[in-house]
Amino acid sequence: MQRFIWTILASFVIAMVIGPFIITWLKKLKFGQTIYELGPQSHQKKQGTATMGGVIFAIAAPVAALVFSYKDSRFDFLLIALVCALGFGAVGFVDDFIKVKLKRSLGLTPMQKIIPQIVLSVIVAFWAYFHPEIGPNLTVPFVNVEWNLGWFYIPVMVFVLVGTVNSANLLDGMDGLLGGCSLFDFATMALICLALAAGAEDPSNLLNVAIFAGAMVGALMGFLRFNANPARVFMGDVGSFFIGGALVGICVVTRLSLLLPLIALAMMMSSISDIIQISYFKYTRIKTGTGKRVFRMAPMHYHFELGGMPETQVVAMYYIVTVVMCLVALLGFVA
Amino acid sequence: MQRFIWTILASFVIAMVIGPFIITWLKKLKFGQTIYELGPQSHQKKQGTATMGGVIFAIAAPVAALVFSYKDSRFDFLLIALVCALGFGAVGFVDDFIKVKLKRSLGLTPMQKIIPQIVLSVIVAFWAYFHPEIGPNLTVPFVNVEWNLGWFYIPVMVFVLVGTVNSANLLDGMDGLLGGCSLFDFATMALICLALAAGAEDPSNLLNVAIFAGAMVGALMGFLRFNANPARVFMGDVGSFFIGGALVGICVVTRLSLLLPLIALAMMMSSISDIIQISYFKYTRIKTGTGKRVFRMAPMHYHFELGGMPETQVVAMYYIVTVVMCLVALLGFVA
Repeated sequence: MQRFIWTILASFVIAMVIGPFIITWLKKLKFGQTIYELGPQSHQKKQGTATMGGVIFAIAAPVAALVFSYKDSRFDFLLIALVCALGFGAVGFVDDFIKVKLKRSLGLTPMQKIIPQIVLSVIVAFWAYFHPEIGPNLTVPFVNVEWNLGWFYIPVMVFVLVGTVNSANLLDGMDGLLGGCSLFDFATMALICLALAAGAEDPSNLLNVAIFAGAMVGALMGFLRFNANPARVFMGDVGSFFIGGALVGICVVTRLSLLLPLIALAMMMSSISDIIQISYFKYTRIKTGTGKRVFRMAPMHYHFELGGMPETQVVAMYYIVTVVMCLVALLGFVA
Repeated sequence: MQRFIWTILASFVIAMVIGPFIITWLKKLKFGQTIYELGPQSHQKKQGTATMGGVIFAIAAPVAALVFSYKDSRFDFLLIALVCALGFGAVGFVDDFIKVKLKRSLGLTPMQKIIPQIVLSVIVAFWAYFHPEIGPNLTVPFVNVEWNLGWFYIPVMVFVLVGTVNSANLLDGMDGLLGGCSLFDFATMALICLALAAGAEDPSNLLNVAIFAGAMVGALMGFLRFNANPARVFMGDVGSFFIGGALVGICVVTRLSLLLPLIALAMMMSSISDIIQISYFKYTRIKTGTGKRVFRMAPMHYHFELGGMPETQVVAMYYIVTVVMCLVALLGFVA
């Protein structure tokens, strides 16, 4: 446990130390965010804020995790989680880079984004499938049943991986929103891993995952120092994909993907509201000639903002709901 | 542990349910805050925001703690902590009430505030002194030495009690600042109590304190939903004194008052910066004829704001520093 706390602190310190250098460098390279023209009007003032700040925690967390992991013991869970985080983060990095260089708000085309994501997801799904301690099983929380999906595990996991990463990306639309919500998710997954490790025959794999989750907590604390409203830097796609990848990677190796609708409710709702909005708009346009909207704007956090709730209040509300959901999730893992 | 999590959730739900009713009632009674004229200019826009919102958690937390406490076992630690919270909270309530009724920004005179605080502190200090499990000892963290203060315990504890409560009061000057920082403190004290209880012969007293600390976490989460920037309600002196009383009460019964400079660093710095500012001003006025200031404004959080850091960023910085200090404190209590 001491080692776990030291990991959080070290990761935080790394993020705080490299943060100012990275931000200065991003600004010099003119990596200012080109604000998505379809977002709320009030967000246009954010034009020019440095983006790709996710590089800060995408460096700090893996470094801290690798320094503090138990290297003399089993290491493969951590490796899979790191591959998810860094792999998806790399896709985001390319996307950001193109956005900035071509001064386009949308970066890679949807196809160019989704294909490497699917390829990576298929690799991770097979890797997990053939791993003797992960296999084709998912734990059903609260009832503690192992659910064997057989070969169906592969497409389900590809869906979970791609879905989570892109949901994280959609949630990243307000200062501190994704960083803070996911911080609570990582803290929760760390506590769950520590609780599971306490009862495991060979806890080393789970402890290393807890170390990584702790490293994410520390790195995000450091990042939020720069990302808190009004943000001095945005995380960019490199950040949101890295966070999504790290979170889903941790869930895959612990077989706890079914926890995601609970702890990552904010991310899920971003995707679902987006899908509802687009589907309903297309449906009503075909039916009545004019498209109608369910939300004032999707993803859902903009719906609240356009309803008159200030950005900082929306973010606070999302934090509080996330913590409540995380506490509910923890109920399934403590005596 | 499940009971502990249920307490947090229940306390949160109570705060969320009673919150809107209490805020409506406060507004009807015209309990709008009269903003301290000496605060930053930017805070004048907060004039008229309802105050005394601390009533929300001052009701929710004790109710949840009493419902979920282990009543068939030892109960006295919880009782002392509750007396501190409710006693100091009552002083704050009277202060707020006078402020609003007389439309004065300063409420009770300093003497009228400090005398009941000292009386209550003396009672609590004697109560703790004669309690066989608290006695005149303080635990020195990290080295795990019990330090016997003898009769000196009484004045030291009176100083700690009065100091902490008034420091909490000074920290309450920005939306979400004291509520959020103290939330992390209560979460930390809850975890420490749970850790200590795991190794105790009779853990029931410590478990009940953990339950109360958890109830504070939940109640503050609910309160922050209304207090997050831009605040719809302020906690008022009833809130800040209640928080200070609850925190120091928990530290007194666990003999962990020496942790306060660490976990409650933000509160301490508020007091210390105030004392430095006033002393230096008086000193330079006597020496040179004109008073000089060390900080742009005291307490210190205003110093940062007047230096150009937006309020929300100052609050985020205080949160992050508090979490780091809490993690350092936890290092002393885990294997």
